[in-house]
Amino acid sequence: MPNEIKPVVAVAGATQGFVDSVVKDALEQGLCEFLLYSDVPLEIPATGVSLMSGLDEQSMVDQAVKSIVEKRGTLLMKGSVQTFTILRAVLKKENGLRKSTVLSQVSAIQLKESGRLLLLTDPALNIQPTVEDKIAITQNAIEVAHKMGIEVPKVALLSSVEVFNPNIPSSADAHEVATYFENNPEAAIIDGPISFDIATSHEAATIKGYPGSIKGDADVLVVPTIDGGNFLYKVFSHFVPSIVSGVVVGAAVPIALSSRSDDLATKMASLRLAIKTSL
Amino acid sequence: MPNEIKPVVAVAGATQGFVDSVVKDALEQGLCEFLLYSDVPLEIPATGVSLMSGLDEQSMVDQAVKSIVEKRGTLLMKGSVQTFTILRAVLKKENGLRKSTVLSQVSAIQLKESGRLLLLTDPALNIQPTVEDKIAITQNAIEVAHKMGIEVPKVALLSSVEVFNPNIPSSADAHEVATYFENNPEAAIIDGPISFDIATSHEAATIKGYPGSIKGDADVLVVPTIDGGNFLYKVFSHFVPSIVSGVVVGAAVPIALSSRSDDLATKMASLRLAIKTSL
Repeated sequence: MPNEIKPVVAVAGATQGFVDSVVKDALEQGLCEFLLYSDVPLEIPATGVSLMSGLDEQSMVDQAVKSIVEKRGTLLMKGSVQTFTILRAVLKKENGLRKSTVLSQVSAIQLKESGRLLLLTDPALNIQPTVEDKIAITQNAIEVAHKMGIEVPKVALLSSVEVFNPNIPSSADAHEVATYFENNPEAAIIDGPISFDIATSHEAATIKGYPGSIKGDADVLVVPTIDGGNFLYKVFSHFVPSIVSGVVVGAAVPIALSSRSDDLATKMASLRLAIKTSL
Repeated sequence: MPNEIKPVVAVAGATQGFVDSVVKDALEQGLCEFLLYSDVPLEIPATGVSLMSGLDEQSMVDQAVKSIVEKRGTLLMKGSVQTFTILRAVLKKENGLRKSTVLSQVSAIQLKESGRLLLLTDPALNIQPTVEDKIAITQNAIEVAHKMGIEVPKVALLSSVEVFNPNIPSSADAHEVATYFENNPEAAIIDGPISFDIATSHEAATIKGYPGSIKGDADVLVVPTIDGGNFLYKVFSHFVPSIVSGVVVGAAVPIALSSRSDDLATKMASLRLAIKTSL
């Protein structure tokens, strides 16, 4: 389809390494086109890529965000700039790109053996979200699940226990968030507080006789604070055969985040996740 | 060695299933002897086992703890009773069994592929420990590491970041705990705040250029709150080939905890861990 309109990815902080890996791969696969904002000159392919170079960090970010505001770009991708700089620019009031009350990160964990997909939120941005924040974080993740083709996602509000216990703050928060969604039904099935094993293992849910709707088959895991989420995505990255990618949602367009230490497969998975989330 | 003195395990809440699995296995392997406290009559082996049956829950616990106070029992093991009941009895002042300021749980994660052993604390008892509690929890775990034969354990005080950040409570606490141990050197190497990937993956530590003493080779992981620890031990139990056992320490004798849903290998690993910790 030569006239198909492709997503245009605005990259703040593109490097030659990024062009030679991610850009090359994405163009070959016909995934998208690129607007690159760089500090240094880059050798770029003749088609599908525009480049503006010689920019300082703030300008790379500002120009990339401007391309979104002007609808030349479809989504953002972080290159060599600080996450903080890009998020601050996205949140600037005059840019009008804020959509949810909270920007949050959703990690997608694709398990290699079973092919199972787990969405995990928020392991990266919100340190100690309030109940209101957690409601927004949960809604953000439900929207990502819908974009991924999961029509009625099963959402587990994780705690260390599966029974409401007022002494355990994560359990009390999960209870409140679950109650909110009960009163405001969304296109999702929501259980909480629920423990990690019951949310992810059918066997554990059966042995423990868990009465809820999720019996090891959660699609979305909502963690109570950044720490637990961070531990989880790192244990999956390093101890479980899987590809763990990530996207920031809650703004008018998704933001693909990747770390310099990520391998190409992970960077491509983050780009694909962001593209899917942008459609 | 027919005259060797064996550890004597006092079991609060023994069942016939427990006798037919754990007791049978442990006797065959010559690991220990048993004092069983049960509500119902049990068929027990002729040697190595004493039984007191017909007790209610509180009496099963009280009798088991009494055997420790009177030094007939060497360590405790939880059977069908509530964890809460057994911990409360251990902590009773008049029993004089409290040793540390805090009772804490240490999970031992034995990875099947690499043979690597990770001690994780505290994923089960202390919900939101204070800095003082975390110092005691860390000391309890160092003692377990020593009993396991790790002469100078590397102890990682986990957070979602590896640089002190006053906005992230787990990072601030880890910084305080690390400073305490700097001023009070113990037979351990202690780093914190440190992220899970740097603590457990040499590759991640190298890529991130972490300047501390732990570069993926942590022996002990200290989590900031119960939730993160709980997620970690459950993800290891269900997604990583490993045997995850657990022991409660901080009292005069260790307490082996096992859950009815644990398989025999896990129950035996918990018993072995507790025996090792009691010596």
